[in-house]
Amino acid sequence: MSTWNKIMECVPNFSEGRDLEKIDKIVAPFRAKTGVKLLDYSNDEDHNRLVVTVVGEPVALKQAVLEAIGVAVELIDLNKHSGQHPRMGAVDVVPFIPIRGCTMEEAIALSKEVGEEVGTRYAVPVFLYEKSASAPYRENLAAIRKGEFEGMAEKIHQPEWKPDFGPAERHPTAGTVAIGARMPLVAYNVNLGTNQLHIATDIAKKIRFIGGGLRYCKAMGVELKERGIVQVSINMTDYTRTALYRAFELVRIEARRYGVPVVGSEIIGLVPMEALIDTASYYLGLEDFSMNQVLEARIME
Amino acid sequence: MSTWNKIMECVPNFSEGRDLEKIDKIVAPFRAKTGVKLLDYSNDEDHNRLVVTVVGEPVALKQAVLEAIGVAVELIDLNKHSGQHPRMGAVDVVPFIPIRGCTMEEAIALSKEVGEEVGTRYAVPVFLYEKSASAPYRENLAAIRKGEFEGMAEKIHQPEWKPDFGPAERHPTAGTVAIGARMPLVAYNVNLGTNQLHIATDIAKKIRFIGGGLRYCKAMGVELKERGIVQVSINMTDYTRTALYRAFELVRIEARRYGVPVVGSEIIGLVPMEALIDTASYYLGLEDFSMNQVLEARIME
Repeated sequence: MSTWNKIMECVPNFSEGRDLEKIDKIVAPFRAKTGVKLLDYSNDEDHNRLVVTVVGEPVALKQAVLEAIGVAVELIDLNKHSGQHPRMGAVDVVPFIPIRGCTMEEAIALSKEVGEEVGTRYAVPVFLYEKSASAPYRENLAAIRKGEFEGMAEKIHQPEWKPDFGPAERHPTAGTVAIGARMPLVAYNVNLGTNQLHIATDIAKKIRFIGGGLRYCKAMGVELKERGIVQVSINMTDYTRTALYRAFELVRIEARRYGVPVVGSEIIGLVPMEALIDTASYYLGLEDFSMNQVLEARIME
Repeated sequence: MSTWNKIMECVPNFSEGRDLEKIDKIVAPFRAKTGVKLLDYSNDEDHNRLVVTVVGEPVALKQAVLEAIGVAVELIDLNKHSGQHPRMGAVDVVPFIPIRGCTMEEAIALSKEVGEEVGTRYAVPVFLYEKSASAPYRENLAAIRKGEFEGMAEKIHQPEWKPDFGPAERHPTAGTVAIGARMPLVAYNVNLGTNQLHIATDIAKKIRFIGGGLRYCKAMGVELKERGIVQVSINMTDYTRTALYRAFELVRIEARRYGVPVVGSEIIGLVPMEALIDTASYYLGLEDFSMNQVLEARIME
């Protein structure tokens, strides 16, 4: 327990969602390894994609991630890949996320170490993205990935899309990869007591960053047909700066304009405890509360 | 990290709050030991008492606790002890608290193993208390301790106060000890925007169990003189059954009768993350949320 002084998370996305044998080989380097814990992996046949969630002590995590990338580069041929999800490489994107006892700067440094190694060891061109990006226009994954595997053959020759590490040519089968550091994402949805999608969409537009809303908030309206309600589907991109409760209360405030009640909310996937403890602290009006008072935080120190 | 499958907490209270050298020797068995983590210890000179908070894998924790008890029995002479806090032994009380991956039944079993060992190895009479008690009238620590070290010389001869383990005579210098299992306590106070102590006292009487209030709630009114306000000081004795937010909202409801606002609240000492996450879940109206979605819970699995 006390052997992990730092906990880093990594959520690599691989372009293989159908062949269970290959998936097993890609995930293998994360199993039964000291200093690494595989939390989850899920493959989607339609997307033809595998998403792995793993945490670990940074050095051990780095080795395991490099090993898994090596396996994926060997097993996956993008020339034969099709699926609903956009992709530019056998290993499409590798984000590192600081969880406990380590800083964003350490996550950035780790992502660059891994990037350099992937470039030289596997001859796969690497684009640093998000907080690790070498220029602001390279922060956004969608901007880097535009054109996908097929378009990358030419795109990589444009001066502004020179990779940060590795060869200046697309890998013939493994394409290219984006590696970087980012904050934990929290997928958080707020449900509304109406079946009018346009209301959820309107509210989403008001609360999200690009619409003049909260700085670390992406949102869109979604219909939950079987329940006959709609939902403001939110991606909280930095819960330490834009708190969960703030998004929730803002949705409630905007919903008033339509006379529509908030009927509940939901968290999809994993959430760091601090996001919820901060929310409890707000509603209870806690004075002088520190995360050091949380028993589990102390145990994990 | 993944080596601790079960986490048990122990909060032993020792009757030494002044001699730092002795305190250091008592705490030593909890330091730098595999499977055990010392979270906190604090000594109070007025109380002449030392409270240690330690967590560990059950077997390792048991050994460390037994070792520390041995040191305390050797170093502390109750005949020479005075302090504000009631006490009946060199080691006054030893509660075991299940935290993660273990049940109350396992905590009870562990407390009995430790009790038996203390009785035979150190010849100190042991009373099992709280969830480990051998009869309902022996659940309450205050009832067992009544008469303290001095009175215990006679009290122990009464048939109803026969110890559960160890000799039927008070240990000449170390007295007697209470050992048992209990839920985590959360010390939680709600602050009111008034300087009228009787209002905090009235509200405390209404929300606590003995006054017809919440089942797992003890409470009293307290004056915060320097701030010019009063406080409902609460002990949540089982936050899994009586949620924190329920006590908070009930204080707010009762305060309305006096036209007094709730101005904040505070948690004293440590709190299990579940107590606060459950509170966040209530205020956000989370649907289908599971503690398994909390990243740290998954890491500690």
